[in-house]
Amino acid sequence: MNFKTELENRILYLEENLKRYLPEEAGYSRTVREAMNYSLLAGGKRIRPMLMFEVYQLFQGTSELIYPFMAAIEMIHTYSLVHDDLPSMDNDLYRRGKKTTHAVFGEGMAVLAGDGLLNYAFETVLKAKIDTDEMGICLCSLNVLAKKAGIDGMIGGQTADILAENIGDSVDLEHLLFIHKNKTAALIEASMMIGAILAGATDDEVNKMEQIANKIGIAFQIQDDILDITSTLEVLGKETGSDDKNNKVTYVTLNGLENSKLQVKKLSDEGIDILKSIETHNGYNNLFLNELLCSMIAREK
Amino acid sequence: MNFKTELENRILYLEENLKRYLPEEAGYSRTVREAMNYSLLAGGKRIRPMLMFEVYQLFQGTSELIYPFMAAIEMIHTYSLVHDDLPSMDNDLYRRGKKTTHAVFGEGMAVLAGDGLLNYAFETVLKAKIDTDEMGICLCSLNVLAKKAGIDGMIGGQTADILAENIGDSVDLEHLLFIHKNKTAALIEASMMIGAILAGATDDEVNKMEQIANKIGIAFQIQDDILDITSTLEVLGKETGSDDKNNKVTYVTLNGLENSKLQVKKLSDEGIDILKSIETHNGYNNLFLNELLCSMIAREK
Repeated sequence: MNFKTELENRILYLEENLKRYLPEEAGYSRTVREAMNYSLLAGGKRIRPMLMFEVYQLFQGTSELIYPFMAAIEMIHTYSLVHDDLPSMDNDLYRRGKKTTHAVFGEGMAVLAGDGLLNYAFETVLKAKIDTDEMGICLCSLNVLAKKAGIDGMIGGQTADILAENIGDSVDLEHLLFIHKNKTAALIEASMMIGAILAGATDDEVNKMEQIANKIGIAFQIQDDILDITSTLEVLGKETGSDDKNNKVTYVTLNGLENSKLQVKKLSDEGIDILKSIETHNGYNNLFLNELLCSMIAREK
Repeated sequence: MNFKTELENRILYLEENLKRYLPEEAGYSRTVREAMNYSLLAGGKRIRPMLMFEVYQLFQGTSELIYPFMAAIEMIHTYSLVHDDLPSMDNDLYRRGKKTTHAVFGEGMAVLAGDGLLNYAFETVLKAKIDTDEMGICLCSLNVLAKKAGIDGMIGGQTADILAENIGDSVDLEHLLFIHKNKTAALIEASMMIGAILAGATDDEVNKMEQIANKIGIAFQIQDDILDITSTLEVLGKETGSDDKNNKVTYVTLNGLENSKLQVKKLSDEGIDILKSIETHNGYNNLFLNELLCSMIAREK
């Protein structure tokens, strides 16, 4: 089976898992439930639960807690998109060709749906059946989830991004890497760390998953900055990208295109090397995970 | 010492506890941290952590987890106010005489600060030191917190309230009680239940705390509806209250003033009776808790 088919099968599997945890659409609070489900089912590559599950399989996990945690990480990712799209934030009416949540349900309901999804992520895990011997890994995984989603993670990155928009040209490399690390890499780190924790991996292995995810997450964002220039030139045939038009400071404007490409290659190689060292040590590997990580960086669009 | 002095001492104590858990204001995400702390320290009666602590003392609790949980419930209450005040919701520029969070930090940052507070509530508990023998009560308390704050609790009540504003006159008693139960009573239920759970109370005792909180919470809201009419007439000297001017359906418009007053008395008596039955059974009591619950209902403004 080729990678693309395996990827599509996994997306279907992850969406089936997610559907098991959707809130019922009924009662006086029906509208917020509809808005939450609309947002959750509006497509997406399900990359975070996919990474969580592949790492869990790499470490031969058996705890059933993986299923609610996979739904939870997608709920947190989705809530961040719903709130990012709000008129008071990026003011986007469409995402992946579908109307955004506030465009369909109104702004107040989109605020509530985002709140509902963040809260429901924790609720989904906490109302699952948690055996006594799983309490430790459950609390540890919840701790990672909360930290990486919060002000020391994704929310912190989003705040720094708003600050960057306000100060424009004064954004430096440290600030930009802070945004990439927190806004993008943090939830990827959470995904891979939780997959490992729930599978009973050692602290050292969990730390290595964090390192891999950090490198791949940052490389992913630099690749985004690169594609904003190259894909418009080579693929779309436009003269300049949207970042350039908005005078936005990116990794490419700070370091140049060639250095940026080299950095993506370097981070990606380092991440894959750490993964291989673990596979060699444990005697197990996960070819799909390896290919998935590479595909996140070597993408053309 | 009289009740008012004891109350003020407890508020000071609870604010000191809260301050121990505030996020540091530093780094590229400084703004969201400032907005979170601004909201948390903008005053308030700290009624939820106060109830949590009094119930915990009633059951002679010893777990140190009570301290992060008291901060967490106040963070969740505060985030709900920050988001309720947004232009897309109630559009309030002042609360308790101070500018609301979005009035000071802007709308986008207020959305993020609310998200940050909800997330930080869970984070605050999860990063606390949790001994192995406390894992069960910690997960159980987190489960209660998530459920009562979410779509089956506070967020559900807020959604039903927005629905009520849209349908106006068609709101019936069932719908109104759903709002009161979820928007107001749910977090009070969580506070009292968690105080009991963390103190090692039995399931039956935790259920009774939920019942008391439910009755007191709903009575509190009916009293709010009553005061909107009587305090404007008798205390403030105005002809009609704001609910009446907005043609808002309230418990009083549906049941009349006298019946509403009787219902407050009935719910309050029932709640206090349950509390007394527990105190008699266990041989411990908490006079301050008793007085606190009565004061929530017998207030004049």
